[in-house]
Amino acid sequence: MNGARPGDQPDRMARVALTWLAEPGNRAVWQLVRADGAAATLDRLLGGDIPDPTLRGAVIAKAATGDPRRLAEAALQRADRLGARIVVPADPEWPTGVESLSTLELDAAGRINHDVRPPLCLWVRGGRRLDEAFARSVAVVGARAATAYGVHVTNELAFGLAECGWTVVSGGAFGIDAAAHRAALTAGGLTVAVLACGVDRPYPTGNAALFEQIAESGLLMSEWPPGSEPLRHRFLIRNRVIAAATTGTVIVEAAARSGAVQTLSRTVALGRRAMVVPGPVTSAMSVGCHELLRRHPETVVVTGTAQVLEEVGRIGEYLAEIPRGRGHVRDDLDEDSALILEAMPRRGAIGPEQLAAKAGLGVRTVLRRLSLLELAGLVVRRHDGVTLAAPTGKSVPR
Amino acid sequence: MNGARPGDQPDRMARVALTWLAEPGNRAVWQLVRADGAAATLDRLLGGDIPDPTLRGAVIAKAATGDPRRLAEAALQRADRLGARIVVPADPEWPTGVESLSTLELDAAGRINHDVRPPLCLWVRGGRRLDEAFARSVAVVGARAATAYGVHVTNELAFGLAECGWTVVSGGAFGIDAAAHRAALTAGGLTVAVLACGVDRPYPTGNAALFEQIAESGLLMSEWPPGSEPLRHRFLIRNRVIAAATTGTVIVEAAARSGAVQTLSRTVALGRRAMVVPGPVTSAMSVGCHELLRRHPETVVVTGTAQVLEEVGRIGEYLAEIPRGRGHVRDDLDEDSALILEAMPRRGAIGPEQLAAKAGLGVRTVLRRLSLLELAGLVVRRHDGVTLAAPTGKSVPR
Repeated sequence: MNGARPGDQPDRMARVALTWLAEPGNRAVWQLVRADGAAATLDRLLGGDIPDPTLRGAVIAKAATGDPRRLAEAALQRADRLGARIVVPADPEWPTGVESLSTLELDAAGRINHDVRPPLCLWVRGGRRLDEAFARSVAVVGARAATAYGVHVTNELAFGLAECGWTVVSGGAFGIDAAAHRAALTAGGLTVAVLACGVDRPYPTGNAALFEQIAESGLLMSEWPPGSEPLRHRFLIRNRVIAAATTGTVIVEAAARSGAVQTLSRTVALGRRAMVVPGPVTSAMSVGCHELLRRHPETVVVTGTAQVLEEVGRIGEYLAEIPRGRGHVRDDLDEDSALILEAMPRRGAIGPEQLAAKAGLGVRTVLRRLSLLELAGLVVRRHDGVTLAAPTGKSVPR
Repeated sequence: MNGARPGDQPDRMARVALTWLAEPGNRAVWQLVRADGAAATLDRLLGGDIPDPTLRGAVIAKAATGDPRRLAEAALQRADRLGARIVVPADPEWPTGVESLSTLELDAAGRINHDVRPPLCLWVRGGRRLDEAFARSVAVVGARAATAYGVHVTNELAFGLAECGWTVVSGGAFGIDAAAHRAALTAGGLTVAVLACGVDRPYPTGNAALFEQIAESGLLMSEWPPGSEPLRHRFLIRNRVIAAATTGTVIVEAAARSGAVQTLSRTVALGRRAMVVPGPVTSAMSVGCHELLRRHPETVVVTGTAQVLEEVGRIGEYLAEIPRGRGHVRDDLDEDSALILEAMPRRGAIGPEQLAAKAGLGVRTVLRRLSLLELAGLVVRRHDGVTLAAPTGKSVPR
């Protein structure tokens, strides 16, 4: 091992160089870095001491085209000039959700896939901290060839999520992705575009104005250094980061046999919520969505913001930021939520277990529903349990 | 016990009289009939020997308004005049699927419901045998206030099912029900309207011309004698027969909190296939469908005829009647079906177990998929297993 320590300049430079030598997610590289650190791993690979024969071939071929250390230095300087920064696992803002990729073993077809390990580094443009942006985030993704229906539903969903303080994450593509970013911006919310190319040249260029807006008020993020091209295989590599960094993924429209199937399989394998918006069975752009619902029992139908929040919400986590009195949410309450509200004591607090017993529901159901009720401003979490919210006008329950 | 025997005139008359004394499905009546026969049960009830206090009160009140035996005789004569017949369990054409109601214990909310026992008798107009009509039948039901989308999807589904030799069963209502009946008639197929009133005065009268067509080439069926009114509570009683008599039920459109939820709960409780057609999340007429998909994991998304057949099909049962060479079905093949086709020997037959092993799939999956492939004319079932169908033009696989 050399003397580099996690987060210092040699560590950063080595992570950039390693990402150039082998595409992000490479299992062999990631294991070496975990064992010895990035700088030592770079030394070892450039010294030819590579146990994995596939990796050895790839590194030798790549290293013949340039000096990884010089290219990494150049990338770091270029990033500096254009106001981008590099974030590594030792940084406080590293989005820890991506580390769950270290245990992911399945590809879309359910076969073992070794090259879906966590990123070594992330390039970022934008003023927000990555960890805060992803702490309460939902990916809203879908077809490039979206229909008016898909764009409309995406607008409603992404606007609603942003309004409730959730970050809308997407891939910056035409269609559903762009609609999701735009709606979040319109709501004055936070949006992150996770790119498959350099943050200095976001793809597609047709969305250039949108990317500038995102960089100003949200975040552009990529595993590839500035200047990198959006090569076709990189979109699949990128997708694993969207699935891992967010709390859940919503697919709004997808054609038959689309990449959405892979994204949702990973979402499920990572223990994230996998959500699908249905559509007309007569629409080619909903065929993939219906396929997902038919073949993957873990995927859940969602038809609006409240249902997405019900899936991803965690009780108490963001209470302070939630606008109260959203009376219309109560109109959407399902039977379980109504039972819970009925079982709430008129005065004082009650614990979730007691509440579950009174309502005749499972504790897990109660916890998930409480998070929605809290969002809706109908209940309040206190140190001694949950209480009914104080009446503040017509939007509060009888 | 008196001397009546199942299927003789006193047995028929007694079943009609009992259905008049207590609404169909009554558990106490059904248990007495099962134990002692219909004629003896009628004697007993009219003699006041009624253990169940609720039933005793109801019978006394009803018997005070008329003589059950005379009313039953009059109903049988009236039926005779208008060309209707009564069918009882002793008749060869009794649709045995309805007997599964003898074990049904759940109502829509999952609570015990005692009054969903099998019918005591069925009134029928139309020339086809009931048992044959229901042997391969799918219920296609949904909202009265159907949208153009719902009617379109219903047309496609019911036409396709009828074309493949499946009976389309529905409730004769405006909207989805009527569209299902009409499409089956257009396809030259068989359709059954299960009514909540007498077969001589089918409701709603706005569908009178449709009902006449159904009586001519299909079947009108009811538990209530000619002249009976379509009282509100009878629709729920009727729905249990639709669920029990068919192989599966498809809900095409349903508003929030619609009766479709009850129908589907029963369908599932009876071990029948529960299928739901999704729609735009912006459509109020699809809200109930999406609710069903969210709350009932047993329900399956279906988007077309092939997927319905995949759910309800049973291998080999109706091979002879299926038109071959429906090339477009192959385009809809899912991955499992493609794996099965690939695993088929180019020559000769293979058993399902061997095929499952070769394809790397479960035997149950293989059996279900084979039924679709058989329907599509891609495989043929023989005494020694299944074979690839002989090439007969462009619609047959390579």
